[in-house]
Amino acid sequence: MSDTSPKNTPLPPGSTIGILGGGQLGRMLAVAATQLGFHVHIFSDTPGPAFEVAQSHTVAPYEDEAAIAAFARSVDVVTYEFENIPRATAEAAMAHAPLHPSLKALETSQDRIVEKAFLSGLGIPVAPYAVVTRHTKKSINYDVPGAQPKYPALLKTARFGYDGKGQVRVESEDDLTDAHTQIGLVPSVLEERIAFAREISIIAVGDVDGNVNSYDLAENVHENQILKTSMIPANVPDNLMPMAHVMAERIVRALDYVGTLAVEFFHCPDHPEGPLLVNEIAPRVHNSGHWTLDACLCSQFENHIRAIVGWPLGSTRRHSDALMTNLLGDEITTWADIAADTSSAFHVYGKGEARSARKMGHMTRLSPLTRE
Amino acid sequence: MSDTSPKNTPLPPGSTIGILGGGQLGRMLAVAATQLGFHVHIFSDTPGPAFEVAQSHTVAPYEDEAAIAAFARSVDVVTYEFENIPRATAEAAMAHAPLHPSLKALETSQDRIVEKAFLSGLGIPVAPYAVVTRHTKKSINYDVPGAQPKYPALLKTARFGYDGKGQVRVESEDDLTDAHTQIGLVPSVLEERIAFAREISIIAVGDVDGNVNSYDLAENVHENQILKTSMIPANVPDNLMPMAHVMAERIVRALDYVGTLAVEFFHCPDHPEGPLLVNEIAPRVHNSGHWTLDACLCSQFENHIRAIVGWPLGSTRRHSDALMTNLLGDEITTWADIAADTSSAFHVYGKGEARSARKMGHMTRLSPLTRE
Repeated sequence: MSDTSPKNTPLPPGSTIGILGGGQLGRMLAVAATQLGFHVHIFSDTPGPAFEVAQSHTVAPYEDEAAIAAFARSVDVVTYEFENIPRATAEAAMAHAPLHPSLKALETSQDRIVEKAFLSGLGIPVAPYAVVTRHTKKSINYDVPGAQPKYPALLKTARFGYDGKGQVRVESEDDLTDAHTQIGLVPSVLEERIAFAREISIIAVGDVDGNVNSYDLAENVHENQILKTSMIPANVPDNLMPMAHVMAERIVRALDYVGTLAVEFFHCPDHPEGPLLVNEIAPRVHNSGHWTLDACLCSQFENHIRAIVGWPLGSTRRHSDALMTNLLGDEITTWADIAADTSSAFHVYGKGEARSARKMGHMTRLSPLTRE
Repeated sequence: MSDTSPKNTPLPPGSTIGILGGGQLGRMLAVAATQLGFHVHIFSDTPGPAFEVAQSHTVAPYEDEAAIAAFARSVDVVTYEFENIPRATAEAAMAHAPLHPSLKALETSQDRIVEKAFLSGLGIPVAPYAVVTRHTKKSINYDVPGAQPKYPALLKTARFGYDGKGQVRVESEDDLTDAHTQIGLVPSVLEERIAFAREISIIAVGDVDGNVNSYDLAENVHENQILKTSMIPANVPDNLMPMAHVMAERIVRALDYVGTLAVEFFHCPDHPEGPLLVNEIAPRVHNSGHWTLDACLCSQFENHIRAIVGWPLGSTRRHSDALMTNLLGDEITTWADIAADTSSAFHVYGKGEARSARKMGHMTRLSPLTRE
């Protein structure tokens, strides 16, 4: 519907935002959009928690290009809550409405091989890695584009991995062929397992005019490869924030990126490529940015919406310290205790079944600022 | 559905909250309820902005007791966003689900005569007033229950006035009969027009166990009898906050009140009945508490939901100073300028038509705390 508008004309309240994906990220995006007076249309292959707060929804496979086209024609801009969107789907949407973030961002983040080459090409340090180039049960060949990865290492599928799915630990070169068989002989990356001091992430947002704002660094703890907590401020030297911001800004500009972006880092002060190595980028709002809902004037969700509708970015200033804890699986059954914690904001995603390790909600404990 | 539960058993996430009224207050209540994992069913005589974020809705006249009963049977608790709910409607709902705040709160706030007698009975100072007891075109009789009201005064209808509707200024006793004719010869209150220093309000919330929390005082400016701005902190001596809190607490307890309550005051340090006279009470979330959405961990909306589902109250602590400005009528057409104000949170209610003086949205400018 906005095809005829100049690129930078902001959409007025009352316009409709289309979101691919109906999970909790889509839900929090929808609430942010509604606060600003936008309507929301969710497209998902299955009904999800975002449907509860959206005004329209389409249930169809992501591969159904006719359904995608009809969806895109009915909205003013299309965005997404997850990066594993088929290229044909993105293109079918783009034929009828602007897509933000860009197709290039999707394609870069969908494939670890492309992502690492992209980052390295920008001069952004990543964990030493090898690209597995031959895929048989008997032998394995790989290329090493940069520094030689050391063992122990992780073998990760190039595509469609998340929350630790599609990766296996490799102790030595001898185990590599077995590991590759284990993950299905698909294109993969062998990545040095970084002895990091901590994992941190930055949430950045880019607008249509090329401005980039970042939130303060979060220090993240994963359990079973799923994010458990994010602590803000991160316990890191002050110079890491500008360093991370500059990297995020370079990524945003190189991808013609509009919207919220997450960059996950290993903080490894003693590594020869350190102190910050990029682990991965996510072209979307991110679990490690949920604290911005309660500790900032403008959350990562609102800033994503502001960016994709062509509005100026909101403030990323933090008014409180924060500790975000994910509530996984049946941890949500302790809701009465969480409700009684009056220093925490409580977010429940409204999912029906508390399957093991499923993200059911989160809580963010706030405290007065210890340092800006 | 909860009839058989003990009074203080909290409702779990996944329960359904019924809200009478579909305007912006219902909308912000619905968003708060959804964040906590509740479903929302809106009942309104006309579709409104709350429908966009609620999972179910009923459109029927408030007098349709069969529709009210069906609505109440389908939810776990009933609340309301406006106080002018007919008694029969409230009773029809109460036959099938708990109603919060109480019927007594509704009935007290619906009638200025009842409200002033109630407040005076609690020893809470109100503006000197007279109750108009005879209603003919030729003559007027009135009772003065307390201090004698001075002129100029305001003649206000006892029932169904809001935002300055149903009131007229009276310069002297000679004008009283004409004024009464002008407002339709209905039961009325003649109220001394207080030469106040400022108008302030307190938002308090009471839970099922009798706990009462209050937010910091807001200093309110009205234009054409409609709230224009709320400033927090109010520019008042420190002793006013505990004074206002004690009054709110007394009101909450006397009404068996569960939920968010607003008390509006005149601050008049030189008045013989001062320094705080209660202007009116509103048994609901209130426009002068919108700043709590952005300046507090737990907003007036979330605290209302927490109270009515039997959860512990959330924190009313303020992390920032705030200035809330209502956006009335076509002021919303300046949305692009407001969007560019990066120190303000912007809320658009999604109403179709920007009729004159209609509340279309609000903005809250935040700044670091100047004093706690």
